[in-house]
Amino acid sequence: MKSFIQIPENSDFSIHNIPFGMAIINEDNVSAVTRIGDTIVHLSNLFDEGYFEEFNLDYNPFNAFVLNDFIELGKEKTVPIREKIQVLLCEESDLDNNPEIHSEIFFTLEQAELVMPVHIANYTDFYSSIEHATNVGIMFRDPENALLPNWKHIPVGYHGRASSIVVSGVDIHRPKGQTKADDAEAPTFGPSKMVDFELEMAFITNQDTEMGSSISTSEAENHIFGLVLFNDWSARDIQKWEYVPLGPFLAKNFGSSISPWIVTLEALKPFAVEGPKQEPEVLPYLQIEGNKNYDVQLKVYIQPENSEETLVSRSNFKYMYWNMNQQLAHHSINGCNIELCDLYASGTISGKEPNSYGSMLELTWKGTKPITLKDGSERKFIQDNDTVIMRGFAQKNDIRVGFGDVSCKILPTVEL
Amino acid sequence: MKSFIQIPENSDFSIHNIPFGMAIINEDNVSAVTRIGDTIVHLSNLFDEGYFEEFNLDYNPFNAFVLNDFIELGKEKTVPIREKIQVLLCEESDLDNNPEIHSEIFFTLEQAELVMPVHIANYTDFYSSIEHATNVGIMFRDPENALLPNWKHIPVGYHGRASSIVVSGVDIHRPKGQTKADDAEAPTFGPSKMVDFELEMAFITNQDTEMGSSISTSEAENHIFGLVLFNDWSARDIQKWEYVPLGPFLAKNFGSSISPWIVTLEALKPFAVEGPKQEPEVLPYLQIEGNKNYDVQLKVYIQPENSEETLVSRSNFKYMYWNMNQQLAHHSINGCNIELCDLYASGTISGKEPNSYGSMLELTWKGTKPITLKDGSERKFIQDNDTVIMRGFAQKNDIRVGFGDVSCKILPTVEL
Repeated sequence: MKSFIQIPENSDFSIHNIPFGMAIINEDNVSAVTRIGDTIVHLSNLFDEGYFEEFNLDYNPFNAFVLNDFIELGKEKTVPIREKIQVLLCEESDLDNNPEIHSEIFFTLEQAELVMPVHIANYTDFYSSIEHATNVGIMFRDPENALLPNWKHIPVGYHGRASSIVVSGVDIHRPKGQTKADDAEAPTFGPSKMVDFELEMAFITNQDTEMGSSISTSEAENHIFGLVLFNDWSARDIQKWEYVPLGPFLAKNFGSSISPWIVTLEALKPFAVEGPKQEPEVLPYLQIEGNKNYDVQLKVYIQPENSEETLVSRSNFKYMYWNMNQQLAHHSINGCNIELCDLYASGTISGKEPNSYGSMLELTWKGTKPITLKDGSERKFIQDNDTVIMRGFAQKNDIRVGFGDVSCKILPTVEL
Repeated sequence: MKSFIQIPENSDFSIHNIPFGMAIINEDNVSAVTRIGDTIVHLSNLFDEGYFEEFNLDYNPFNAFVLNDFIELGKEKTVPIREKIQVLLCEESDLDNNPEIHSEIFFTLEQAELVMPVHIANYTDFYSSIEHATNVGIMFRDPENALLPNWKHIPVGYHGRASSIVVSGVDIHRPKGQTKADDAEAPTFGPSKMVDFELEMAFITNQDTEMGSSISTSEAENHIFGLVLFNDWSARDIQKWEYVPLGPFLAKNFGSSISPWIVTLEALKPFAVEGPKQEPEVLPYLQIEGNKNYDVQLKVYIQPENSEETLVSRSNFKYMYWNMNQQLAHHSINGCNIELCDLYASGTISGKEPNSYGSMLELTWKGTKPITLKDGSERKFIQDNDTVIMRGFAQKNDIRVGFGDVSCKILPTVEL
């Protein structure tokens, strides 16, 4: 497959990707879009040109403010529609041979402002990296018993806040809140001093299920439209004081960031790999067949204001102990209904090596080992006006499929 | 104020109430409705008759599937619209004097199927009863230090699952999941053996706020449209195994139940009372002026299949240690944005007396003191085909404003 659109070397957006997003084009109209190389493709106009007539849709699903209606079509439609787009972008296609419409279909990156691709119905965050859970356990509980007794039996998760999930490029203010020093009598109020990122990935579901029903591990993939990069911003000092016994709350819900491109599960299939061996054996409803982990290389950078970025972590989505199939099966085993465009995040993705940890908490080991950035400054946690950038891509032979990035700056706190 | 509609003695739905709900009328059309006595009022038809022209709305907000669009009008509109409905329902009003349209405005309870009144954007559950938190602390942690150190400083809360909140009358299947006996080596899988109710109330917000902004305790009431009764169904055995360290998850998200009528904050204002003294003093952002608790009498009944109901708990919303103003101020102090039709639940409302506890966990003290029902059977927790009914009303002199009930049956588990 060779596209008639020029694709820079090492682009995340090869002809094999064809992700979906939403954009405001030329500050004028909103459309579902895809990206090939550095070119934005206006899918709503492409639809109006009649290129999707074979799918017999009675409305233009790309003419919308979010992708929810498109995703709701289900894989029966969305998979062949994506394949049709792929074919149209290849040399000698009907679209290649119809240059007079190219000006309404193709736009530069500068012409497209990427916005939230979906309206997120419900958001759950898992805790599925054994390296991350172990590191946290060593730091905050007992180094000898770092993993809690339930961890290898349950893909532990908790409900998060959907309202404050924003797209890459939307900046977030440093949260205020209560914190309490170990030796203090009472808590104090002020801006968090320990704002952290968490390197995660997240998947988006494509249909509603009925309350009382469950999704098996073998059915789970039919419910997953695609994935995004996810930065689960965390205020460690707020978290420490609030999270026992009911879990993280204000330490998390001031904001989370997603990448603007949803890479479909189909585009990632060539990069499926075996996951870590699960020992002890998991209960039958969590057992899987086949390779359900994905080899996606992940990197995190910190960029101080007016300075260059420094790579601070290299991890990989394939490290996950619990995979997406197991997460979805567990989430619904009790009859909890899944909704269209729910977002399910992985939890921090850490590897075994210290430079592969997915949070500053782990990278600086609770602030005891600061990181030196290229400009010579040190970081224990994230400072005001620092931008955190996460990038991710899968590569096999010369096929590359990537997510671009999720980038977000921490702005100073809003005074009361 | 005297209505021309006949109102049974001790009706929750006096002329002082005028709550809002959604109903399918005669299996034919959906409309926003209110209730007076045992009469359902079709608000969409009332609007079409021109009775709300003075409000200059460019669409009929009652002609919808949920109340979200009406609630979004904000108190500037919703408060006087409710007062107008109140006036119209009084003797000698324009509506009283226009009997030829009564057949399209007034319906019997049998003609109206009450459905979910709102689409819930986000759901948070607090943990704001000191008696409940103390009871749980005594049972599961340390009787000498039952309250955790943060409890009197923070209105502790956690995110819940919005998708599985259902209206009264929708039954819920017993959840399946992992549980582990204290002396077992490994967890086992099966239906929960400890399904419990939690007696709660919940409030619904009326507007979006910006990320980064906060709602002060003095502004909070402007954001609260009204309240419902709330049953936060809980599977105690699943909860025990899963909830450390990230909080309750599958133990809760199999379903929660709300009453169909949203009683406005304005209707409850006459019943405002002082709350418990907060000692130690709370941080400035949590301080309040005036009476922010509400004297709402609450009762819980268990009704086995084909049997009569037994009163098992009498509690009161006024027992809450943390009030709604404090909950909303805390939730947004970090910049978390609030959305239109979020639902914020109180947490289990227990009183000081053992017969006022708001859950079976507390009433039977972890199952050690079973309750005997009127039919002679015993309950430690809720059995299959038991219906749990919660009722609530406020009364002062001869003015009564109530919620009706929230009723839900636990059906047998769905087999895999």
